[in-house]
Amino acid sequence: MGEENLPQSTVQISLPGFVIDVAESERLARSLGHRMVDDLLPSLVPAAMRHAQVPISRFPVGAVGLGSSGRIYIGVNLEYPGLPLHHSVHAEQFLLCNAAAHGETWIRSIAVSHMPCGHCRQFLQEVRDSSDIRVLVTSDGPDAVYRPLSVLLPRPFGPPDLLHKDVPLLLDSHNNDLGEFEKVLEGSVGSCNGEVEDSQLEKKLREEAERAARGSHAPYSGCPAGFSVADSEGGVYAGSYFESAAYNPSLGPIQAAMIAKVIGSSVTDIVAAALVERENGLVSHEGTARAFLAAVVPSAKLHVYRYKKSDES
Amino acid sequence: MGEENLPQSTVQISLPGFVIDVAESERLARSLGHRMVDDLLPSLVPAAMRHAQVPISRFPVGAVGLGSSGRIYIGVNLEYPGLPLHHSVHAEQFLLCNAAAHGETWIRSIAVSHMPCGHCRQFLQEVRDSSDIRVLVTSDGPDAVYRPLSVLLPRPFGPPDLLHKDVPLLLDSHNNDLGEFEKVLEGSVGSCNGEVEDSQLEKKLREEAERAARGSHAPYSGCPAGFSVADSEGGVYAGSYFESAAYNPSLGPIQAAMIAKVIGSSVTDIVAAALVERENGLVSHEGTARAFLAAVVPSAKLHVYRYKKSDES
Ligand SMILES: [Zn+2]
Ligand SMILES: [Zn+2]
Repeated sequence: MGEENLPQSTVQISLPGFVIDVAESERLARSLGHRMVDDLLPSLVPAAMRHAQVPISRFPVGAVGLGSSGRIYIGVNLEYPGLPLHHSVHAEQFLLCNAAAHGETWIRSIAVSHMPCGHCRQFLQEVRDSSDIRVLVTSDGPDAVYRPLSVLLPRPFGPPDLLHKDVPLLLDSHNNDLGEFEKVLEGSVGSCNGEVEDSQLEKKLREEAERAARGSHAPYSGCPAGFSVADSEGGVYAGSYFESAAYNPSLGPIQAAMIAKVIGSSVTDIVAAALVERENGLVSHEGTARAFLAAVVPSAKLHVYRYKKSDES
Repeated sequence: MGEENLPQSTVQISLPGFVIDVAESERLARSLGHRMVDDLLPSLVPAAMRHAQVPISRFPVGAVGLGSSGRIYIGVNLEYPGLPLHHSVHAEQFLLCNAAAHGETWIRSIAVSHMPCGHCRQFLQEVRDSSDIRVLVTSDGPDAVYRPLSVLLPRPFGPPDLLHKDVPLLLDSHNNDLGEFEKVLEGSVGSCNGEVEDSQLEKKLREEAERAARGSHAPYSGCPAGFSVADSEGGVYAGSYFESAAYNPSLGPIQAAMIAKVIGSSVTDIVAAALVERENGLVSHEGTARAFLAAVVPSAKLHVYRYKKSDES
């Protein structure tokens, strides 16, 4: 009996990665007997869940989304003990951040293992035409169907309540002007175990955090920011700050960099990090970055770079 | 022409405070020609909005809730520049925290100035029978009506997904066992401008933070916590940590203490603060407390007290 004749639930699918290209997505769909890639997404949810990092809740969540490009993006939840719970990353946020980092411009379908929480339903509002994103919850069992997001968050509060319609939203292209750039602070958190001697690594950390800040979605505070981390094998992973119209569900640049590290399959410790943010801005992530590193990897060296920007620009 | 004949919108109502007792609520309702106190709530929303502290968004939100006791609770949004946006407090969270701090066991109706965001719809799930809480949005204008919360957050993720039905929820009575108590750390944030010489004040800060920790709702992490602040006039204001099943919408003890300070009409600077939290717990607020104080009042002295607790207790 060929694999395609087995009940879907008995087929152990491995993910080829956190981003699945168009050809591979279509091949996977065919191999599992699906006519459309949308129908493949729920089958990938159990494999996604196995990548969750949930030392606090022991409650893994997996999300699988299909972009308008035809690529598939995976999301999982991440948790960090010893910090407040708002450092947690939800699977749906991971998925959107993953899609944004890969230049995807829209997500048309998301299959997720559990009912999305209100925080995630709100974060998804940052995508243009978010009400049309279709969401399927696999824990609904055989009755699981795709429903528009507008059914899960009717009468939403969102970007149209605060922004002009021409302002780029989360998956739209961003190239923020960072004005004048200056290195103003350099230091370590916790007990210092020595300088990062590798000036090439320092340069790459700064460049990647700066690139992430240029791609940041921060229309509510006017404070684009980016964060990058280097692991002990020299891999550098950066994340952009993504704001929510409802403020609190915003995804911080530190969380976004941790998402990039997971996507990059980096498993070694962080040795150094860089934060690029606005000088004297309404929002600063420095205290949070220090608290995060102190809890997760106190030996890591943190560089903070601030850009100066006049409000009228 | 008597005041009762004027259109409601032209009557400038002043709030008697952030909690309005039963007799005053009924008197206010009668004076404005309302048969029921529920009908009074929308009239108080503009007065509530005037108490919002919104230096980032300039977007004041006011919420007015009626408890099953007959008391009215006010909520406003609070924002703190120079920190990440998750330090913000939404009006609906302020209202619930206010009600919990005053021993209210249920909220039956909430009138709010703007459509509640997904983060707040999620936080409200922590109340028992939350689906029956009625919400009216005054920005709906003449069409504004009370609708059950279940209409705003259908198919919710919430406490029933994670907790046994007998676990106390946010407005249920809490008296957390803090196990063995020990003062483990004492220090200041930022540049120290001297010790708090007043040992009576230090004692009161610790007692209030401990009391707040006993009243904390932290069933997901098992880490009840409380925070207290003293202003320069010797007033002490404490707040309990309130967790959300969805983690990120949790209200930190620092935010809860700031709510208490606003309710107490304290307008002078914080001079000292105390945090009571679990030693080696899955959740710690210390880094966030330091980052918050460093941004808001760097001269404040912070005391951290930790309780030891075995997991089986
Ligand atoms: Zn969520
Ligand atoms: Zn809200």
